[in-house]
Amino acid sequence: MAMNRRIVLASRPKGLPVPQNFRLEEVPIPSAPDGGFAVRNHWLSLDPYMRGRMDAAKSYAKSVEIGEVMEGGTIGEVIESRNDKFKVGEFVTGRIGWQEYGTSDGVGATKIDASSAPLSAYLGVLGMPGVTAWVGLLDIGQPKAGETVVVSAASGAVGSVVGQIAKIHGARAVGIAGGKAKCDYVVNELGFDACVDYKAGALYDMLKAACPKGIDVYFENVGGAITDTVLALMNPFSRMPVCGLISQYNAASADDLHGIKNIRTVLTNRIKMQGFIVSDRMELWRPARADLATWLAEGKLKYRESVVAGLANAPEALIGLLQGRNFGKQLVKLV
Amino acid sequence: MAMNRRIVLASRPKGLPVPQNFRLEEVPIPSAPDGGFAVRNHWLSLDPYMRGRMDAAKSYAKSVEIGEVMEGGTIGEVIESRNDKFKVGEFVTGRIGWQEYGTSDGVGATKIDASSAPLSAYLGVLGMPGVTAWVGLLDIGQPKAGETVVVSAASGAVGSVVGQIAKIHGARAVGIAGGKAKCDYVVNELGFDACVDYKAGALYDMLKAACPKGIDVYFENVGGAITDTVLALMNPFSRMPVCGLISQYNAASADDLHGIKNIRTVLTNRIKMQGFIVSDRMELWRPARADLATWLAEGKLKYRESVVAGLANAPEALIGLLQGRNFGKQLVKLV
Repeated sequence: MAMNRRIVLASRPKGLPVPQNFRLEEVPIPSAPDGGFAVRNHWLSLDPYMRGRMDAAKSYAKSVEIGEVMEGGTIGEVIESRNDKFKVGEFVTGRIGWQEYGTSDGVGATKIDASSAPLSAYLGVLGMPGVTAWVGLLDIGQPKAGETVVVSAASGAVGSVVGQIAKIHGARAVGIAGGKAKCDYVVNELGFDACVDYKAGALYDMLKAACPKGIDVYFENVGGAITDTVLALMNPFSRMPVCGLISQYNAASADDLHGIKNIRTVLTNRIKMQGFIVSDRMELWRPARADLATWLAEGKLKYRESVVAGLANAPEALIGLLQGRNFGKQLVKLV
Repeated sequence: MAMNRRIVLASRPKGLPVPQNFRLEEVPIPSAPDGGFAVRNHWLSLDPYMRGRMDAAKSYAKSVEIGEVMEGGTIGEVIESRNDKFKVGEFVTGRIGWQEYGTSDGVGATKIDASSAPLSAYLGVLGMPGVTAWVGLLDIGQPKAGETVVVSAASGAVGSVVGQIAKIHGARAVGIAGGKAKCDYVVNELGFDACVDYKAGALYDMLKAACPKGIDVYFENVGGAITDTVLALMNPFSRMPVCGLISQYNAASADDLHGIKNIRTVLTNRIKMQGFIVSDRMELWRPARADLATWLAEGKLKYRESVVAGLANAPEALIGLLQGRNFGKQLVKLV
């Protein structure tokens, strides 16, 4: 008898997660509930926010409890339905979590057109990461033509889209990424104007050279010492959408947190720094996805994926993602 | 022959200014220039921003050069005029600086009605500090009725007005100030709902008790460790106008700066942190002053002044202000 394999949170990590924080379980494949459907997942998305869900600490979303299935965005095929809106054989995005099969009551599930783009794109440029880039850059950052946009984690699922949207809007796009291969990709394939390797040292000097007119928008994905360096180059009336702080997520205690020293520039340069979560802005998903789909079809949006095969490899892939070992959008292929 | 006494910047301070950074000079009393007027100053305002002007470092305004008259807001009486708009005997606010006499071409000078409020109020509640409170709180902070507004340096020229405006708008006003006398004043005379003494220890616990529903607006005047404590209590979608960082102005080097560790709450609580300078928002001065004058006349705005007599005492008074030794608006009485 075929079984559903799933990964639950076995224990809460201290600092960087380890494989022992996760546990693979086998349970019967669930049936469609009244008014809902059952789905077989083809793709699982891995994203930095998942680290926050593994902590007990209060965050913007509730924690995953010990023994609960790890949370995550998925794309799957409907295999049984008791809901007229979702038919067997259709593909849907949802938040079924780290498992091969699951059910949905239909709320929060969206049918996707498997013929217009690869399925996995709906977890990347056309999904949460792409919409996150659009909302943070255009709604908070509001770059004008000729301004300079800097984005950290520039080769990642969000950062790569941020820089490309900045270019589409006529701004100068400068990435920060780890290592020469990622920086080369950001410039040569994604078309950023420049990309600075934060692992190469002399970040301030290199970033200053890449931003001769200063920084008007800094799209924050990483936090830590990089933020202090960027703050020193921000222009008057610049904007800083805060999307992620991946360098700080694995701090085991307050001692491991970086203290931001250059906060005075927020005052002297009248900077607006604003945190955001894309799920707060549901009203923007439709226009964002419309833009992203248009740009993708026009060849203006490029992306790269890091794919691991098999649910059992998801924990190691997330641990790698939290250390920047992925290259582009991190996915787990389940079928 | 009567002379003009003035104080110039003698040398740049390292850390907290010392009296030797200032020099008192005597020069002839100037005559009214073509199209302008000469003024005898009655009051000089002392404000925390002056510390920044003493540094060579780039800030939002240009530094005072060595040998130049220290910058500052003043109120004086026109003693000679070659400008029809300003008549001898009228009182004007301007930025004549740390001196007993000066001249103006009329730009940036405003006639005041000496009969409707005490002269010195035009350097406090009706002047730059009052307008700063109004702009930061209402334009950036945007408190709603029932929300909790926290302001640091709560007994100071800006902070005292912030809390009173918050109350006028139906919000809960909580101050942070140094010492029991200031806290008692903030609650008993200004009418804040609570005030926490940051010098008494256990700031987090006391602030939490004073803000049982968390903090919706934090009006930032001080920076440093207090900011980290406040950040830990900020609510989702809260706002943080950044008006001043007085605890950080005297840092002699980056080692002396406090590193902000709780920046993650900006993301998880989607906080908007925004620096502002009131001189950027000239279009708001008229509505702000109209409100402030109305509230003052209605008895809804109270204020306290720390006055020292004589220009020669201005350096020590500024040094005291930077250490929180003043109580309310710090002024120098020149006549």
